[in-house]
Amino acid sequence: MALSKKPVTGMKDILPREMEIRDHVIRIIKDTYKKFGFTGIETPCLENIENLTNKQGGENEKLIFKVMKRGEKLDIHNAESENDLCDLGLRYDLTVPLVRFYSNNISTLPSPFKALQIGPSFRAERPQKGRYRQFYQCDIDILGDPSNLAEIELITATSTCLVNLGFKKFEVRINDRRILRAMASYAGFAEDSFDEVFIILDKMDKIGLDGVKEELSAHGFASDAINRYTDLFEGLKNNAADGLRYIAGELGDSLDGAIVNWLDEIMSSVNATRTGAFEVVFDPTLVRGMSYYTGTIFEIAIPEFGGSCGGGGRYDKMVGKFTGQDTPAVGFSIGFERIVMLLLEQDYQIPNEGRKVAFLVEKNMSADRLGMIMKEASNMRNAGDIVLVSRMNKNKKFQKEQLEKEGYKEFKEFYVESR
Amino acid sequence: MALSKKPVTGMKDILPREMEIRDHVIRIIKDTYKKFGFTGIETPCLENIENLTNKQGGENEKLIFKVMKRGEKLDIHNAESENDLCDLGLRYDLTVPLVRFYSNNISTLPSPFKALQIGPSFRAERPQKGRYRQFYQCDIDILGDPSNLAEIELITATSTCLVNLGFKKFEVRINDRRILRAMASYAGFAEDSFDEVFIILDKMDKIGLDGVKEELSAHGFASDAINRYTDLFEGLKNNAADGLRYIAGELGDSLDGAIVNWLDEIMSSVNATRTGAFEVVFDPTLVRGMSYYTGTIFEIAIPEFGGSCGGGGRYDKMVGKFTGQDTPAVGFSIGFERIVMLLLEQDYQIPNEGRKVAFLVEKNMSADRLGMIMKEASNMRNAGDIVLVSRMNKNKKFQKEQLEKEGYKEFKEFYVESR
Repeated sequence: MALSKKPVTGMKDILPREMEIRDHVIRIIKDTYKKFGFTGIETPCLENIENLTNKQGGENEKLIFKVMKRGEKLDIHNAESENDLCDLGLRYDLTVPLVRFYSNNISTLPSPFKALQIGPSFRAERPQKGRYRQFYQCDIDILGDPSNLAEIELITATSTCLVNLGFKKFEVRINDRRILRAMASYAGFAEDSFDEVFIILDKMDKIGLDGVKEELSAHGFASDAINRYTDLFEGLKNNAADGLRYIAGELGDSLDGAIVNWLDEIMSSVNATRTGAFEVVFDPTLVRGMSYYTGTIFEIAIPEFGGSCGGGGRYDKMVGKFTGQDTPAVGFSIGFERIVMLLLEQDYQIPNEGRKVAFLVEKNMSADRLGMIMKEASNMRNAGDIVLVSRMNKNKKFQKEQLEKEGYKEFKEFYVESR
Repeated sequence: MALSKKPVTGMKDILPREMEIRDHVIRIIKDTYKKFGFTGIETPCLENIENLTNKQGGENEKLIFKVMKRGEKLDIHNAESENDLCDLGLRYDLTVPLVRFYSNNISTLPSPFKALQIGPSFRAERPQKGRYRQFYQCDIDILGDPSNLAEIELITATSTCLVNLGFKKFEVRINDRRILRAMASYAGFAEDSFDEVFIILDKMDKIGLDGVKEELSAHGFASDAINRYTDLFEGLKNNAADGLRYIAGELGDSLDGAIVNWLDEIMSSVNATRTGAFEVVFDPTLVRGMSYYTGTIFEIAIPEFGGSCGGGGRYDKMVGKFTGQDTPAVGFSIGFERIVMLLLEQDYQIPNEGRKVAFLVEKNMSADRLGMIMKEASNMRNAGDIVLVSRMNKNKKFQKEQLEKEGYKEFKEFYVESR
């Protein structure tokens, strides 16, 4: 019976060239975080449907691929709604699985637990260019460490990882939810309007300070508060070198000095290990969308992207909501698919690959001679080369041209000896 | 809202120690096959349901996790059967995805195409010890090579892979469907009963030659044919050193000499590269269950397992059934999960891991000093060590004991200097 050739709508086949890059990126990520004492974990692609539909996933919960019940449990004729028919769902991110994993295995896990998880997530989104319904996520989390050493290790490891991937210039932007709140409070916004204010502030890099001002105004905020707020950002322009101290000075008692020290320690400790490729900068306009962040937030900006390629923050209250036991937590999510796409576009060459040599073997070679050829290939492979052993085609010139496209630059030809 | 802590029934969370082994095995597999010119590919976990239910999957088609249609396409109230409700399914193996991938991308793929695919498959089997509903498969295939060079490369690469994984002694058993058929034909079994005969022959290692004899008899086969058949296997016992030549001699014209040469070339070429760890042996009792095999079949037996840990064969007719275009093909499937389990049970130590050093840092360290500590950790990591930077707990003794369990053997303590 004929097969439909296309992959599932919105999903894609990964071809050899992209796979090479993906494998390389995964390897660098795993190797780098391992050096920092992170351990890999894996959770199933499927979760019980109740775990995916408890409102923690926001809009993503509308995008779940749901799996039908099986056998006797499936009762089609009495089903009233979707929920009667399904018991499992494909995960839409790695956060719910991580928290479930942590609470399921806490007794055997080290504390703090430093976890690295890479794997596919699934969302039934409207298909669009560059976005797929199956995509890899890469999450790195430290659970159980209330100190800012967690942030320091996480940001240092992630920066090191990007350097190891060959990124020559990027910025780690850092802020703290508590500073965001203190600034809004200092300006005079009411606490229950903070989220609204932050959503507008988050657009700063697109609409500029004037745009933010206008939009706050359009939302009906008092001009006093708006001016006091935007003056802070205006003042920052002349104090960019030490923005954190400037904000601390302006806010005075409105901002707890411990928070300033907290952030300052993170920045100076991470910067102590940097090699010139990146810089940690205080960015009081950084908001990060997810409402579950409670403290430090950060984002990595690679100019080549024109956007963020990863970010995260501290979320001390989330694990407890699921497990009933408060657990401090900091996490980073790396934009795996974006990084792969960028490296592909740049025609990235993986370093330290072996020589690629193609052996072309004429037909009707004796078994003995074939054995010797295989032995020679084996010796070269042991020495680090990539050796393809192939039958020699009639059109040898064409065959070589094709092999050259696959990166084989050296050829060795073997002919049947005259008998 | 509380989360259910357990993974989906029949699936499992992968803990750090197992993950370390899995990552290592995947790395060895990828590195080894790469040296032989194989390229990695990946296909989505989901396939269109029609591709999974076209009778090529046999019993596995009963074990599909089916995904519900979404949005307007889901019409619960008018649904008569499962098929009205689902449009996708989780793949139950990597073969259907490989063939679909090949036909979808054939114009951009090299010929022959040497593919390596590792990833999860899903089967709603009855849960049982050591078998999970999500498990990794590892398939290696060569598509488009009609010559036995494909078998030679595939078996050599796979043997090398197992040697690289540290297996010290194993056997590659090899046979050919055409020899199986010639032997049955020579004995006098009717062609339409071959499959029945082979199913019984396949039990040889469990029930012995006498058992096979009895069971053939119980199935009503003529004693003449049974005797002629079992005499062949009896005679093999005294001719084990060159079983292939013995069978060729006995069968005479019943067996095409080209088939004998074909198999002989494979065995001698693979053996030419071996290092003493493994041996390729002719095994005329080897059947391999799958009916789609057309020629060479092989299996790897590791004594430590007490069974096969991988096998495969040539299936020249299958790709064409799907694509409409005949394509010679040989494949190997490695028992990834079994290998991981065996290494775990053996408490396998991954070679060339860095030193594991834990830094214990007292609280209230100055930002400057913390930066210096991070810099020291960074230098050691660059030199290859695994360095965990951790806050010093009040109960330092207990903390160290815990870290020792994770493999940290060296400690370095940092105290706040007296001020």
